[in-house]
Order: sequence, then structure tokens, then C-alpha cells
Amino acid sequence: MPIETDFYFDYISPYSYIAWVKARRWEAEGLWKLRAKPVLFAGLLKRWGQLGPAEIPPKRIFTFRHCIRLAAEEGVSLRGPVTHPFNPLLALRATLACPEANRNTLVDLLFSAIWSEGIEGASRDALAQTLVGVGGDSLLIAGAEPEIKDALVAETRQAGDRGVFGVPTVFVNDELFWGQDGLDHARLLLEGNDPLDETVASKLLDRPQGQRPR
Amino acid sequence: MPIETDFYFDYISPYSYIAWVKARRWEAEGLWKLRAKPVLFAGLLKRWGQLGPAEIPPKRIFTFRHCIRLAAEEGVSLRGPVTHPFNPLLALRATLACPEANRNTLVDLLFSAIWSEGIEGASRDALAQTLVGVGGDSLLIAGAEPEIKDALVAETRQAGDRGVFGVPTVFVNDELFWGQDGLDHARLLLEGNDPLDETVASKLLDRPQGQRPR
Repeated sequence: MPIETDFYFDYISPYSYIAWVKARRWEAEGLWKLRAKPVLFAGLLKRWGQLGPAEIPPKRIFTFRHCIRLAAEEGVSLRGPVTHPFNPLLALRATLACPEANRNTLVDLLFSAIWSEGIEGASRDALAQTLVGVGGDSLLIAGAEPEIKDALVAETRQAGDRGVFGVPTVFVNDELFWGQDGLDHARLLLEGNDPLDETVASKLLDRPQGQRPR
Repeated sequence: MPIETDFYFDYISPYSYIAWVKARRWEAEGLWKLRAKPVLFAGLLKRWGQLGPAEIPPKRIFTFRHCIRLAAEEGVSLRGPVTHPFNPLLALRATLACPEANRNTLVDLLFSAIWSEGIEGASRDALAQTLVGVGGDSLLIAGAEPEIKDALVAETRQAGDRGVFGVPTVFVNDELFWGQDGLDHARLLLEGNDPLDETVASKLLDRPQGQRPR
């Protein structure tokens, strides 16, 4: 049985899209079974006192160019949504409103519509259209209910409690792997090819923290 | 003639060390000629209102484990300094005090002493010992002069003016490449194998920015 793996993401993040496509391919190969965990990236940033890449002007430019390059290398079409950043709440809530059995398919549809086709990610109409074959309208209606709104807040808080500081993040054996190349290392760990030397890692992490200049 | 490439770094950053070793190997292969640009990472973080990876507890753990994995994959020994974070000012200033002709060699020595041998990166004695064959003591004395102190502040400010928001960063054709995999893309660009579609990139970057939830 492939191991169940939590995959934390927000539709606002192009890195999350590329990683999702890779992770789904690996799921098809039998590496793992993904549990899609939608979270509000803005909430995680706030919790850790950070800014998103798109909020720092030169980082925004680097990030988009970087993602287009990574996507090309992975054979993923990446054009991007009509506006960015956009408010991802409707999409995130519709995802949580979807029964788990269909959720990964729904995430495929939403990510692809937003980042490959390039819909407006905050538009209820565009989202309903994208999800027309999988009960989109009822999911959007369900997503507007207080329990789903609360569930998204709770998922984001629980992610932070687990140490999630950015997206995409996956957990393997309770270890957090962040980002594109984090995903590659998660795969190596699952395949028994982890390049990590645990002794070196514990020694390094046990180092006393000195003073940095501010 | 290989192209001259600015490489921005701080000794405090293990990603910078791994990237420096890679970039120096590529220099030996004739890809580029590196111009070492020491900057105070803490100054860049302050300018952009960000925290360093070691300041967010779960990110500190991820970062060190990630770097040990990356280093192993690159065949680089990474054990880390006695304390971390440490105050890198002495090392950065000694680097700026060093004539450009010898500077890359000096950077090799300091990075390797701090991250592979594991000296205390803030210790004047340990740094002097590391640099004993290349006039270390006089470089440390010169580094304490106001003009070198000012030069480090100026280098850090100029880096920020160019858009540098993190380390390591290199520039190729005035384009900023940040981090490990940024370095790989810089190489592809120089070799004429850039996976970037400029039309897609300009369209994406010209998108209007919508509202994100806070």
C-alpha cells in the first residue's frame, strides 16, 4: 500500500501547481497516496511574520520567471491567472467542500484552469464553469457555509501547528519537506535513497545559536 | 572570454556555501568568471522586511536538513560552524579587504573552514588561523578600518538596489537568479539552453495584481 501523504497547497502559488502535477504523476506511479490539504498561504505568512514572494517586487519577477522555467522543465504549461495575486478563498473552500474521494480530481481541475488555462482565480463564475462536471455549483454553495469557512481556518492553523511555513509542503514520516526540491527529497526518502546523514543533521541542529547582526 | 558574473553571498548562509562550490567548479570549466560580492544577509532581510530561515523554528530545521541533503548530492562536506547563526561581519569585511585578484581563493578558504571544517565563524582567532597563508591577520586589521566597514554597508545597499533579496544570488545579462536552482538556470541561460519563454513571462508579469486576503 502506498503511504498516505499530506500535500499542503494554495491555488495562489505557482510552485504549488508545479509540485502538485509532479506529485500526482508520482501517485500514478504508486509512490504515495496524496491527501490534498488546502490552506490559506496568506494565513501562514501572517503567522510566521513573512511576506509572500509576490509582495517583494524583485522577488515577484524572479519567482514568475523561475516558475515558468521549472514548469517548462517538467513539461507543464504555465500561463497564469488573469490577475495575480487573487483571492483564493472561493477555490480553497470549494476544495474543502468536496468529498475526499473526488478531491484530488477537483484540485487537478482547479489548478489547471487557474495556471494552465488562465482563468480569473477569484471569479465564482469561472470556478463554477471549471467544475461544471463535478458538481461545481453545489460545491461553491457548500463552500460558503460557515462550517467550511471555519474548516479552512482550522486547516491553516493546524498546518502552522505542524510547522508548515510555506507551500507546497508534504510530510513523509512526519518530516516536513518544503518546495520543489523538497518534494524531490521526499521521494528519495520514500524510495530508501535519502542523502541525509542523520548524525550530521542532529549535530548541526543542536548547535548553540550565536548572535547575528541586525 | 568567460562572462564576469557577480555572486552575492554571506558566510552565514549554507545555501551560499553549496552554491559557491558549484559556481567555482563551473568557473574552472570556463563557464564564467566569478566576482565575489560579500553582503550582510541580515541587512538584506531588514531592507525587504523578511526573517532569515534560521529565525523561523520549523524552517530552521527544514533548511539545515535540506542543505545537508543538497551538499551530499553535490559531494560537498557540510558540518556547520560551532554556533549558528553567528556574526559574519569579521569574515565579510576581511573578504572586502582582500585584493580582488586573491578574493575568490580567500572565499574558498573561509567558506570551507566555516561549513566543512566547522570553525566558529565569528572568532577573530579562528579566521586568522584559516587565512594564515594569505595574510589573514593584516586582512582582519584592514577589515576593521572605517572604509572597509562602509564598503560592506555600501555593497549591501547596492545589492538591494539591484533587487537582491536573498543569498546566494548571481546576475547573468542583468537578470537576477536566486538560490540553488536559480544557479542551475543561470547556467542554462549562459549555455544557450534557457527553458524560459519570454513571451509567456512578460504576459504573466504584466498581469494586474488582484487582492489577496490578509
